[in-house]
Amino acid sequence: MKAAVFKGEGDIEVEEVEKPEVESSGDALIRVTHTAVCGSDLWFFRGQRDQAPGSAVGHEPMGVVEEVGDDVTSLEPGDRVLAPFSISCGECEYCRKGLQTSCVDAQFWGGENGGAQGEYVKCPHADGTLVKVPERVDDEDTLRSLLPLTDVMGTGHHAAVSAKVGQGDTVVVIGDGAVGLCAAHASKRLGARKIVSVGHHEDRLEIAEEMGATHTVSAEGSEAVERVLELTDGGADHVAECVGASSAMNQAAEIANPGGTVGYVGAPYGVDDDFSLFPYFGSNIELRGGVAPVREYMPELMEDVLQGTLDPSPVFTKEVRLEDIQEGYEAMDRRDDVKVLVKP
Amino acid sequence: MKAAVFKGEGDIEVEEVEKPEVESSGDALIRVTHTAVCGSDLWFFRGQRDQAPGSAVGHEPMGVVEEVGDDVTSLEPGDRVLAPFSISCGECEYCRKGLQTSCVDAQFWGGENGGAQGEYVKCPHADGTLVKVPERVDDEDTLRSLLPLTDVMGTGHHAAVSAKVGQGDTVVVIGDGAVGLCAAHASKRLGARKIVSVGHHEDRLEIAEEMGATHTVSAEGSEAVERVLELTDGGADHVAECVGASSAMNQAAEIANPGGTVGYVGAPYGVDDDFSLFPYFGSNIELRGGVAPVREYMPELMEDVLQGTLDPSPVFTKEVRLEDIQEGYEAMDRRDDVKVLVKP
Repeated sequence: MKAAVFKGEGDIEVEEVEKPEVESSGDALIRVTHTAVCGSDLWFFRGQRDQAPGSAVGHEPMGVVEEVGDDVTSLEPGDRVLAPFSISCGECEYCRKGLQTSCVDAQFWGGENGGAQGEYVKCPHADGTLVKVPERVDDEDTLRSLLPLTDVMGTGHHAAVSAKVGQGDTVVVIGDGAVGLCAAHASKRLGARKIVSVGHHEDRLEIAEEMGATHTVSAEGSEAVERVLELTDGGADHVAECVGASSAMNQAAEIANPGGTVGYVGAPYGVDDDFSLFPYFGSNIELRGGVAPVREYMPELMEDVLQGTLDPSPVFTKEVRLEDIQEGYEAMDRRDDVKVLVKP
Repeated sequence: MKAAVFKGEGDIEVEEVEKPEVESSGDALIRVTHTAVCGSDLWFFRGQRDQAPGSAVGHEPMGVVEEVGDDVTSLEPGDRVLAPFSISCGECEYCRKGLQTSCVDAQFWGGENGGAQGEYVKCPHADGTLVKVPERVDDEDTLRSLLPLTDVMGTGHHAAVSAKVGQGDTVVVIGDGAVGLCAAHASKRLGARKIVSVGHHEDRLEIAEEMGATHTVSAEGSEAVERVLELTDGGADHVAECVGASSAMNQAAEIANPGGTVGYVGAPYGVDDDFSLFPYFGSNIELRGGVAPVREYMPELMEDVLQGTLDPSPVFTKEVRLEDIQEGYEAMDRRDDVKVLVKP
């Protein structure tokens, strides 16, 4: 089968690799129909995070079940499924609490499971990990709207939930990447009345408006903070930090009201260098969030997508075939595109 | 009048200074009967934080009202009062929310208000700041038990509340200073079943047991973490961080279960240097707390002290007269004593 393989900084190649197989009784083999390039894939693409050359990549698979192990009870061949970016058993304390990213047997795509930017993946703990898409769903538009539930939509939702966004609230979303756009969309879904999206790409902020932002601020640093404070009468009780940089984390504390909450979901690589906890301490601002348990959110978000009240598909500004995936990585690396859908 | 004055690193002298006066209609003049040296006073005593030489110090006054301005309605001369470490208006959005430390007109002791380690202080916003002690209370034991409500007991309580400690919970308290001891005491009051106090002073951990700890760990670094994990079957959902050092903040994340909560109240001076947010992110550990709104907690804690169900007075391991306050600072600096009560 074909799969995207990381060769070295700036170099993704599609190669013939061994097709994964059902080995354990809880496994499912999935033929990937839709997948995507993630902003976090750019870390290794840019050489900012170690990744073994030769390793299969991608972690946002959607597809059709081809084969299941003997103990899989919730799925059968032919079922269309969504898979979250992390694999979870569904049975441990943390899975039962809805924190599947802390599953005691958490696993990831790649290695013998196959990378999700490929034709097939094997999913261990299929019952605990995969979410079945109803059989009636097969139009391409709906599938494109479901695909972000594998990662960015669930992550944006986690930012909003972690920031305690609710009916009538004012929320500030820091970041105009796919997760930030989804956080604005999730905030709208949760009933927020004023949603201020902060970024510095006019084209992305237009998408933010399409997805729910009532106001946008295109600026950086202290200018961005000043303009947000004007728009929010001095600050917001709810801030969704969707960048994962120390500058954004520090901005979030400047924007949050005393006693407010910052929901953060940007993986804080390098954050520790310049991050200052003191403003959070001084104003009793809660810091909640982390790596998003998107598995937990999939059923409720899928329901809304299928009812037509949620549609994160505008994050896909480009689509490529698997063999052209390098072009997708490059477009995202240049920030020409927000997120790239990949069709194996 | 006499008051303690910071002269320079390691040097507190009691001098004749000008007695503060009621100037605004909301002021009250208080004759200080009891006050204390705080762990945070050691920062300037040790030269770790800037403090202007010649400035009056102390921020934990209890005393008797001597005079009030025309607009003070809740107090009259002769009333015994407790004062929190920060002055708050009682009327703004944050005071009404119970976050008086973020009062829009927050003020502090010292300067023209007089330092609380002195014979008199003037309290602006007397109605918003001071809490009246019932007239029947005048025995020295009860007064000693009330004094910690001006700072450390409210701060320890804030750590426990921020860590979401409730009935039947397991809580780990990091720190065996006065605030850590009070956090153990507060956890007991909130119904925690297992309270593990972590420190490295045997004498203080004995006090922790007296105040509510069911288990103690006398160790540092990874050894402390290991022993706590043994005692808690792998971690706790509730951790109260009462040190304010990066090592303790990092320990807290190692001890907290995924999805758990760390309540932190140690002022994080210098924390940013080695503090790592990544473990909090990876396990979705909430970080709540900050500078404690002790004014908010005073009425409920006072009620329990007066009913005899709460007694933080064991934190006072030494008592000195105001003129001997240098001796109190030195005893705390050497860690010979937990906290020193001062009688002007």
